[in-house]
Formats: sequence, C-alpha cells, structure tokens
Amino acid sequence: MMIGKGIVAGGKTVPFASEDGKSFSAYDPSTRTAGRALEIERIAAPVIPGKIIAVGLNYRDHAREMALEIPSEPILFMKPSSSVIGPDETIRYPSQSSRVDYEAELAVVIGTTCRNVNAASAQDCILGYTCFNDVTARDLQAKDGQWTRAKSFDTFAPLGPWIVTGLNDPHGLTVTARLNGEVRQSSNTANLIFSVFDLVEFISHIMTLDPGDVIATGTPSGVGPMERGDVVEIEIEGIGVLKNTVG
Amino acid sequence: MMIGKGIVAGGKTVPFASEDGKSFSAYDPSTRTAGRALEIERIAAPVIPGKIIAVGLNYRDHAREMALEIPSEPILFMKPSSSVIGPDETIRYPSQSSRVDYEAELAVVIGTTCRNVNAASAQDCILGYTCFNDVTARDLQAKDGQWTRAKSFDTFAPLGPWIVTGLNDPHGLTVTARLNGEVRQSSNTANLIFSVFDLVEFISHIMTLDPGDVIATGTPSGVGPMERGDVVEIEIEGIGVLKNTVG
Repeated sequence: MMIGKGIVAGGKTVPFASEDGKSFSAYDPSTRTAGRALEIERIAAPVIPGKIIAVGLNYRDHAREMALEIPSEPILFMKPSSSVIGPDETIRYPSQSSRVDYEAELAVVIGTTCRNVNAASAQDCILGYTCFNDVTARDLQAKDGQWTRAKSFDTFAPLGPWIVTGLNDPHGLTVTARLNGEVRQSSNTANLIFSVFDLVEFISHIMTLDPGDVIATGTPSGVGPMERGDVVEIEIEGIGVLKNTVG
Repeated sequence: MMIGKGIVAGGKTVPFASEDGKSFSAYDPSTRTAGRALEIERIAAPVIPGKIIAVGLNYRDHAREMALEIPSEPILFMKPSSSVIGPDETIRYPSQSSRVDYEAELAVVIGTTCRNVNAASAQDCILGYTCFNDVTARDLQAKDGQWTRAKSFDTFAPLGPWIVTGLNDPHGLTVTARLNGEVRQSSNTANLIFSVFDLVEFISHIMTLDPGDVIATGTPSGVGPMERGDVVEIEIEGIGVLKNTVG
C-alpha cells in the first residue's frame, strides 16, 4: 500500500492511502485503515520527520567518485526537518553556494519507537520506504569539512511521493536520478554496502528512533550539479517518482 | 524570569515559571503568564528541541587545544532531540566508546519562527538561554571524521535547568564545567568567536529556526573525559547549574 499526505481543496493537508498512486482514499494513521475516496490537489511530503539520519558513502562506486575510502562502519550525518519539501516543490538555490547537487536515495521511514534493535528484527521498526533527494551544496561540503551546513538549507530534503508499506525486502530496487529527463544515477539497493537492516541496527544502538524518523541510506555514483530551471527526478522501483524543480 | 518544565506528583511534566529557581509557579507558555504556586518533584529539560544546531570551535582556546584552525565561518553540526536529558538525569556511557567528554556551552532557545535574520534583530527570535553539555564520544569523533555519531547517543545532550528570559546581552557570562566539584572549564561568553547574534544570523540564512530549536554556541578549552560515577556540572552566570551523573 502507499500512504502519504495530500493537500485538498481549501489547502488542508490530510493523510491518504492509495493502491495505485492515482486514486486516493482518506487514511487514518492511528488505525491504519483507509476510508472514503479523496480528491487531492497536490501531494505533500509524506512525513515531516523528527530527525533525518543520513548515511554517507554507502555505495562503493560513489565512494570512488568522491575519492574517499569505503568506511568500515556507516558514516552518519543529519539533515534538519526544516529542509523537507514534498513532490513538485522548488529546491531553492542558496546564495552561499555555486554548486548544488542532487543525490538519489532510498529513504526508510520508522514506524515504532526502537532502540538497540538487531538487523534480524529491524523490519519490525520500519513503516515503509520512500524516495529522497539528499540535496547538497558540494562547495560548502568541501569547505566546512563537517557536512551539516552543505546539506541543511531549506528545501534540501525533497521526500516522497508517498511511503510504500509491506515491502519485505528493500534490497533489489533500482534507484535512478534523472536531470531534465536524462539518467544521471542508476544503481540498485542491492549494491548498498550497509543494508537497510544493518543501518537500523547501527543507528538504533546510538540513538532512539521514533515514528516518522527517516534514514536516508546513501547515494550511488553519478552525483552532479543542478542549475536553476532544472527538473530533477528520483525514481525508485516499486515506490514511485519524486520530481522537483530548481529555482 | 526562569521558565522550564517540572515533574509534579503523579509524574506529569508541566511548565513552570520561577523568579529565584527555588519556588515555582504554573506557567502558560501561550500567554507567557505565571499562575498559582507549583510543587515540583524534579526539574526536567526545559524544552525538547525540534532541532539542536551546535557550533564547533567557537572559542579560540578550545580550537588550540584540539589543534584545529580557527574557522572563518561557524562550523555547524546537529544533535538529535532524542539525545536530550534534563538536570540530574544520567549520562549513559555507550559500549562503543572508551572516552566520553563533557563540553560546557551556552544554549540559545529560539522563541519565534525566523529565517534570514540579521544579527541586529536576532534578539527578537530568542526566547532565552540555558546551560548545555555537548557530551561527545571523543574517540568516535576522531574515527568518523563527521561528528554526528560521537555526539548523538541517547543522553548526550543534557539541557537545563531552565530558560532565562529577558537577558539583553548574553556575552559577558562566565561558563564553568566542574567534574566531581573540580573546575575543568572556565571561560566567558565574551570570548565567543562568533557571538550569539552572529550565530542566529548565520544559521537562519541556512535554515528556518522554529520555536524551541536550540543553538549550542560552542565550548571553551578544558574539555576532558568523564568516567562512570562522575558528577558533571555546567554552570553559567545568571542562569544556573546543570548537574548530571555518568552511569
């Protein structure tokens, strides 16, 4: 099933469920049941996470293109929830940067509070999966050393279009980034160095994960700059397409 | 005035106001008014921030002791809200680390949503100030390069004991860390490389700041390890003492 949030006539944001991504029903997250049909004007980000924990260098080919060593443990960083936007919203080019990159990623959405979870039972903590664009001011990332500023600008965390639930194995999904329709990243979550379940284990032994928290699992090779006016699409097999413009 | 949160008989957490840190009144944050007297059993963290933006190397002497250059712009990192604890709660030593340090810091608590604010009007965004201990697994900080893991363990963000409002200039306050009663850090917010108002300007030009967000302004020299059983106190002049044990 797909669950997310839609903006209805009058501007209110309401939860939805969908089987096909085309027709939508009202959804009650507390009971996890779908109700009457819903007319949606625009799809919003499916969740505003309490925290976004992102993983650097989780595909070998991306580590190579960044000329960085493959880490022995996941390298974590965070993005603030204030950077989240939904599908079709505009990624704003900040005046502080002259190189802003797309990064296609599979995002894991946490479903229950979890702490010290083992990989074998990580599935129980996961609500579902969605697409994520880990937008990065590449010049500031290099300048600062710490990645926080480069990845934290408002609009730098496009998320959506919805959360796909009931996916037992998220490790055989193609991940694609297209810039103005041209494929720039193309990989598969089978190539993750640390699997989704490994990441839940690793992160939940550091910090408590809460419902709505997002783990961004890292990007494959092919990252590159966007310009104002560009259209960027992140597509993940079995999930959907997250499309944004750059302004 | 001091405002914060207290745990009352029965275990409920309620907002309080206080003039002296000894007697407390019920407090309504929406109207910012104090009411009837309140019996508090324990003081809790004054806020669970939506985000904690922390600043590295914001005192010259600390940059020197870390053998790092003084940055030309603030170096930012984040700590998750899941790491926040209140006064008298226990800092838990994680099994992944064998060196966990205290770091005394002045914390700024945001009062209103703000974006692209100039230093001259930064005051308008600030609700008040409190004490912060930026607990850090120093060994993991060195290993990872990125500081997120080292600073994000549950209990690694002691905050409190309350928020002091109405402080016009937070730049002449002594900042002290004591370990088992012995002074280990002693400096003054007059020594901040980037002032509180500069930080609000810098950060709000990157990301929207929301009410309850916390800016941790950096630590002076004298950081050092804690052991299980230690008592650590962060004291800031005009604010109070944030005391925690290590377990």
